[in-house]
Formats: sequence, C-alpha cells, structure tokens
Amino acid sequence: MNTTFLSGKEIASLLDMKEVIRAVEDAFLNLGSGKAKMPPKIYLSLDEGDFRAMPAAIPGAAGVKWVNVHPHNPAQGLPTVMATLIYNDPATGYPLAVMDASLMTAYRTGAASAIASKYLARKNISSLGLIGAGRQAVTQCLAHMELFDIKIVKVFDSSGKAIEKFIDLFPQYPVEASSLEEAVACDIVCTVTPSREPFLKPEWIMPGTHINAVGADAPGKEELYPELLRRSKVVVDDLEQAQHSGEINVPIKNGLYQTDNIYATLAEIVSGKRAGRASDGEITIFDSTGIAIEDIAVAKLLYEKTKISNDYLTLDFTG
Amino acid sequence: MNTTFLSGKEIASLLDMKEVIRAVEDAFLNLGSGKAKMPPKIYLSLDEGDFRAMPAAIPGAAGVKWVNVHPHNPAQGLPTVMATLIYNDPATGYPLAVMDASLMTAYRTGAASAIASKYLARKNISSLGLIGAGRQAVTQCLAHMELFDIKIVKVFDSSGKAIEKFIDLFPQYPVEASSLEEAVACDIVCTVTPSREPFLKPEWIMPGTHINAVGADAPGKEELYPELLRRSKVVVDDLEQAQHSGEINVPIKNGLYQTDNIYATLAEIVSGKRAGRASDGEITIFDSTGIAIEDIAVAKLLYEKTKISNDYLTLDFTG
Repeated sequence: MNTTFLSGKEIASLLDMKEVIRAVEDAFLNLGSGKAKMPPKIYLSLDEGDFRAMPAAIPGAAGVKWVNVHPHNPAQGLPTVMATLIYNDPATGYPLAVMDASLMTAYRTGAASAIASKYLARKNISSLGLIGAGRQAVTQCLAHMELFDIKIVKVFDSSGKAIEKFIDLFPQYPVEASSLEEAVACDIVCTVTPSREPFLKPEWIMPGTHINAVGADAPGKEELYPELLRRSKVVVDDLEQAQHSGEINVPIKNGLYQTDNIYATLAEIVSGKRAGRASDGEITIFDSTGIAIEDIAVAKLLYEKTKISNDYLTLDFTG
Repeated sequence: MNTTFLSGKEIASLLDMKEVIRAVEDAFLNLGSGKAKMPPKIYLSLDEGDFRAMPAAIPGAAGVKWVNVHPHNPAQGLPTVMATLIYNDPATGYPLAVMDASLMTAYRTGAASAIASKYLARKNISSLGLIGAGRQAVTQCLAHMELFDIKIVKVFDSSGKAIEKFIDLFPQYPVEASSLEEAVACDIVCTVTPSREPFLKPEWIMPGTHINAVGADAPGKEELYPELLRRSKVVVDDLEQAQHSGEINVPIKNGLYQTDNIYATLAEIVSGKRAGRASDGEITIFDSTGIAIEDIAVAKLLYEKTKISNDYLTLDFTG
C-alpha cells in the first residue's frame, strides 16, 4: 500500500469551495447525530509559540491535524500558522495520506461560517460585511458567494493596502472598500481580525444581522463587546473550545457572559436538534473556533478526489 | 523550504541502535531536568481500533506521533500498529519532516528498556531473558546487546515457530530457545507479550533481577502477578500513562497495587533526582508504556542524519 503526500500546491489545485461546504456541512450533521468522534484538542506550549493536535473521525475517515501558532514568524518571512494533516483509514488505521493542511484550514473555516449563515441568517440577504481583509477573509467571501445571492461585499481593514489587495483578488464579485460602520451594517458580518480588544459595538448592529465571529481563536482574543453577545442568540462550533479560546472566552473569564447563555452548537442546528433563527429581528452570532471534524471532512474530500484523478504523487510508506 | 518525507525503508537504513539509545537517554535527562515538554496523549477510540496523538518537545525539536492500534489488522495482512510522525522546528513550527514511525517506535522502546536496565540492573549482568519473541523482542535484544556484555539470551514464546524465527535473526548473538522458567531466571528479563492475564510468578524471580515490563500498553493488559510488583522497586516512564495503560493498570484498578508504591520515573533516575538500584538483592521493574519524548528524540536524530547524508527525498510542502 501507499501513502499519498499532498503538497500545498496540489491541495490548492484540488480545493473547490462548493465541495468543501458540502463536506463540512455533512460533518456537522454527523457530529450532531453522534456519528462523528472528536476528543478535545491538546496543546503543546513552547516559548516561541504553540502546537495543537486535533484528532477526529467521521464515517469513513479518521485523522489528526497538527497545527502551530508562532506569532513572530512573519518577521522571518514564514506564516504564523502552518498545518499538517495525517489522514487514516478508520477501519485499519492505515495512513492513507499526509497533507499540507494550511490552505484547507482557511477553506473549512470559510465553509463553516457560510453554513452557520445558511442556518442562522435571515432569508433574502443581499449584503456581506467583512471586518479584516486578510487570508481568512478571502475564504469567508468565497464561501458566502457560493451559498448566497450577495449583491454587495463591504470590506474594512485597518490597513488600506490590505483592502486594495483583497478587492483585486475578486474582480468577479461586487466588493468595495468601506468604513467599519458601513461594513457592520450588512446582513451578514464576518469578523476576521486578530483583535484583543472588543471593537464591534452593539449600537452599530441592526436587528436581524447574523455575525460570524471568526477572529478570536485563542485565550485573550476578542472582537465583539460582551453586551452584543448578551443581546444575541449565540451558537458555537464546540462548547469547550469556545469557552477556552473563542469569542466568548474573555467575557466568560471576566464574568460578563455565562456559558448558560450559549444557545446551541452548530451541529445541533444542522442536525435539526435545535431550531436556527426564530425571527427576522433577532441578532445571531456564530462563534467559530475551528474544529477537527471540519478538517477531516475536507481531507476525505481531497483524498477521494486524488483517487479519482490519479493526478498525484505516491510514495512507499511501508517498511 | 522543504518538508522531508522519510518512508519506512529510508528510516530502516538510518536507524542505528547505539545512536537511538544515546538520543533517548538524553531525552529522559531533559525530561527529568524540566527541559522537555510532553502533554498527556489523547485517544481517538473507534469501533475497529483506536488512535493516539503523542505530542512532545525536547530542546531543538518538536512534533507529534500519531499511532493506531487495530487488533484485527493481522487477519488482513496489515500490522496492528502503524505510526506516522510529524517533525517540526520548535522555533517556527515549520514541518521539517514527516516520517513512517513504525520501526522507530520499536527501536525507541528497546532503547528505553536498555536505559532502564543501565540504571536499574545489577553490575556485571551476563544473561538476558526475553518473554515473547515478536517484533518488540528484536529491539529489546538489540538494545541490550549494545549496552551490556551479555553471554546468553534465553528466548521463550508460546509459539515455537516465533522462537525459531527470532534465533535466525541473530546469528551473531548467543541466543537460545528456553522454557518460560529458564528465561525469567536471567539477570535482566524483558516481557514483551500481548498478555491480558498475569503469567510471571514472584517465586520464579531471583533476588537482584531487573525486569522490563513492556507488553502491557493498554487498559486490561497485564504480564506480572501483582505480588511481584509489590515486592519490587517499580519505575515508570510516565506516571499517568502507567496507571492508565501500563503494567500496573490492572492491579491498580483491582486495588492490588497503589500509586504510592511507585518508586520513581525513569526521567528522575536518569537525571539523578532519585537513585537507581539500592542493593544487589532487590528486584527492580521498569513499567514501559512508551512516551512521546522518546519518539521526538529519535525523529531529531534521523532528521539530522538526513541533513548530513543528503540521501533523502524532498518535496515542496509550502503553498
């Protein structure tokens, strides 16, 4: 037998956002109906940064993503976050593939937000606001464009250059630079900044808005004022991770938000155990931290594509 | 930059037991002196088997081993256990290498036992007893041959064929088939069976024996009668793992052995925090479960060898 090695370039050529959304939605469905397994991730914390091991299994697939966060990397010309994924046959444990999972991570994060928007946003939405114009904003935009008939994308970033670069990426979409206040007045808002101070004020948010809070993915990170959380229906991807490192982590630590206030997990909503949006007036928030079943779902999709296309590199991996 | 992919065959050509012992001993020293990091491993348990993620860092190296245990694999012609290791630069998180870690695992397990024997066995030992003649017995033998002047190796296995095969592997060593009682009467005894019932009786063990209890590596596995543990100085590789899945796991569950009875960890002994053997008469037992720092230490050794030899395969791993 062989282990397939998929480099970042090969992954890029295989990724298709429509397929990724379908795979990730299916993973949430499996998680909600008890057919997926996902132990809590573990952290290896070092002086210069940390690593996380994220194991999971969904029907027909198992594996682990191993991902680092090294904040000082950009100064050396390296990405802060790099991910490697080992993909196994759950029936035998055989390591079917090893993948550069960095780009996959951005895709599945975008897909998870668009899926949350599908279940939580109002019907007939037409505008998307992006707060932050970095790499994660790209896949948030791509994923929402797949699922919604969006007439205008408003992008804000503290760096004007980042906004320009973002707009250049999407000549086919109606993307325009905007102020923070304009961007957060859209039907769906995605926050994808590395902020450690809340900046999204409750009074800016119109009734009926859906927010994907994506930026906060580590203890101490925070984008939304706690009052906005308290006024909204909050859905998380993972109860434990959200409390530890999601948008709600700082308010919980400070006593400004309670775990009991969380409405549901996205898996519960996708699997029909809990209803999604209840009225056109409520504000909904998806607190996205990124979970391992998303990664394994995309890995399965890509692995199966390589099997079909045969356009891949195999290496003898057995002794 | 590039990620090096090391197949099982390449690993086999790079492994040298003397070097592995040195690297693993160094890792225990670092663990004992607080220079290594190793969070508890996590399990992903499925119907057909399970997976374990084993992250660790030692000075200059970090990574994770991902290893399965699928008991029904042999019927399909696949090994029960297969391991893949991702090896990272701790300073940047960059994935420097991906390795088939199955053979490495057997080597580091043998090395850990020989290191335990170095600190715990009597001086001037001359006989080695192996209970079980499978793959793990091979590296137990190799490692002890490196560190000790062994005049006779006595091998017992419930399968005569396995003993024959084992003896054929070592024409250069004084290996001979023996009964169980003869094998356990050696100066150093390594138990490497998949037993779930104790078989090693206290009355068979001579004063001054050192035992490496290697076979028990999962809940429910057990090779030694609890009374033998109670009479002996027990050293573990990891306190938590030993209680959960090591030789002491069943006796602890049954109230026949107490955690307080554990004398020390091997890291404490290698780093000089605790003394090793106190007298020629005591029986010492190393309860080996296998820990992630051992794997990362060997991965570092092999990665550095590939850098020197240039006799390896590189693949572009960046987007």
